[in-house]
Amino acid sequence: MTKILVTNDDGIHAPGIFALAQAMRQLGEVTVVAPATNQSATGHKKTLFSDIPVATTTLRDGSSATALTGSPADCVALSALGIWDGWPPDIVVSGINKGGNMGQDITYSGTVTAALEAALSGVKAVAFSLDNMDATEVSDYAEAARVAVEVVKVALVRPLPPLTILNVNIPNVARVKGLQLARQGVRIYFDELVSNDDKTIYHLTGPAPSGVYDTVGTDVWAVHRGYASITPIHLDMTAHPFMAELAAWDITL
Amino acid sequence: MTKILVTNDDGIHAPGIFALAQAMRQLGEVTVVAPATNQSATGHKKTLFSDIPVATTTLRDGSSATALTGSPADCVALSALGIWDGWPPDIVVSGINKGGNMGQDITYSGTVTAALEAALSGVKAVAFSLDNMDATEVSDYAEAARVAVEVVKVALVRPLPPLTILNVNIPNVARVKGLQLARQGVRIYFDELVSNDDKTIYHLTGPAPSGVYDTVGTDVWAVHRGYASITPIHLDMTAHPFMAELAAWDITL
Repeated sequence: MTKILVTNDDGIHAPGIFALAQAMRQLGEVTVVAPATNQSATGHKKTLFSDIPVATTTLRDGSSATALTGSPADCVALSALGIWDGWPPDIVVSGINKGGNMGQDITYSGTVTAALEAALSGVKAVAFSLDNMDATEVSDYAEAARVAVEVVKVALVRPLPPLTILNVNIPNVARVKGLQLARQGVRIYFDELVSNDDKTIYHLTGPAPSGVYDTVGTDVWAVHRGYASITPIHLDMTAHPFMAELAAWDITL
Repeated sequence: MTKILVTNDDGIHAPGIFALAQAMRQLGEVTVVAPATNQSATGHKKTLFSDIPVATTTLRDGSSATALTGSPADCVALSALGIWDGWPPDIVVSGINKGGNMGQDITYSGTVTAALEAALSGVKAVAFSLDNMDATEVSDYAEAARVAVEVVKVALVRPLPPLTILNVNIPNVARVKGLQLARQGVRIYFDELVSNDDKTIYHLTGPAPSGVYDTVGTDVWAVHRGYASITPIHLDMTAHPFMAELAAWDITL
């Protein structure tokens, strides 16, 4: 029986993980281990300096799930280290995230870093995100869940290179135009800062990010045009194209 | 006057940031903005859903610094958005971290992600880490600070590509053998899990990571041999070598 571990960063009671878990049951035996609360934008956090409470909970369809007071990567790391006796699963799927994870979002994203943590443990992983950060839109995870089933079906039988995951972004539409192989594009952020009167407490806010939509072949380009995007992501962040120029820097120790 | 922003992830009162700030004063006007407490292994966390208290504090030499109850990336993001009126600095330097940030450590590392946050704001950045996780060793940041001065001196006058930073690791020795241009190597982790008797509370622990030391040209190889390593890191995590093979996957939506 195919074993599938489902996690996310929006928290165990988010609608996206429920849609993903239900869809994955078409493909195998599903185990849900996810953060107890919203862990969006926590990045690749691993909880090394505090306790991680773990509790059993129930999803809205009555199925059992494990909620962990920690990060998305913790969910995968603790699963790998034995809180779930079925490790290793055939695949780890993360999502469906509320909001796209494209371009430079990757290193911030708990959805993607949970998948990276699986890759660090030698397990295949795919991250799914729905591009629905526009507050005026209604979020429908059904189409994203359908895309997830088709991607995972193939990912289960194809090999991935070491330390490599798949990052899938789905536009918030009733029917995607297709699946586009894409490289990371460029996000544009609009962070704003508000503070109290005596400037001792700040809060980051601002509208959702946009992107450079006209660079053909990128994730932001594909999703903006109504396609789901699939991007292979790896943990080698070495800027290989810059190595030769850096070698010519004259740093004397 | 050259303006240098110094941050870290070990917290504003860690010895590494004090050594780095003092060394950077040889090169320009230094501003220190760092997390109030240890934020190691928090990854590229950005605090979007809670308040970020900001306070003025004093380093051990009596100089003024800004402590922020948030992540390393928050320190850079809030500086970019105006808590420090000298933005943009000529360079952001992060560290000196207690413990190497090599191989797959990068995405976990608050030291490195603070530098990445600077790159996201269009500012040059360098991360410095001392490979001193062996508890039996005495940590001496003096040699690492000397290396930092020589690297930053050149980085200030040379251009870096967009969304690219420099990641420097220094062995814990009195005198490094030299500086080695290196790509990311491979870490080996030894995470262990402990729990209370009823298995409701867990804690991640285990010895410090080692690495694949015999792969020539990597950061773990260079530092293991007594060299400081310098690795250009960029935010494009696309696994370009795998794109052609993924294009041949037969995923039908």
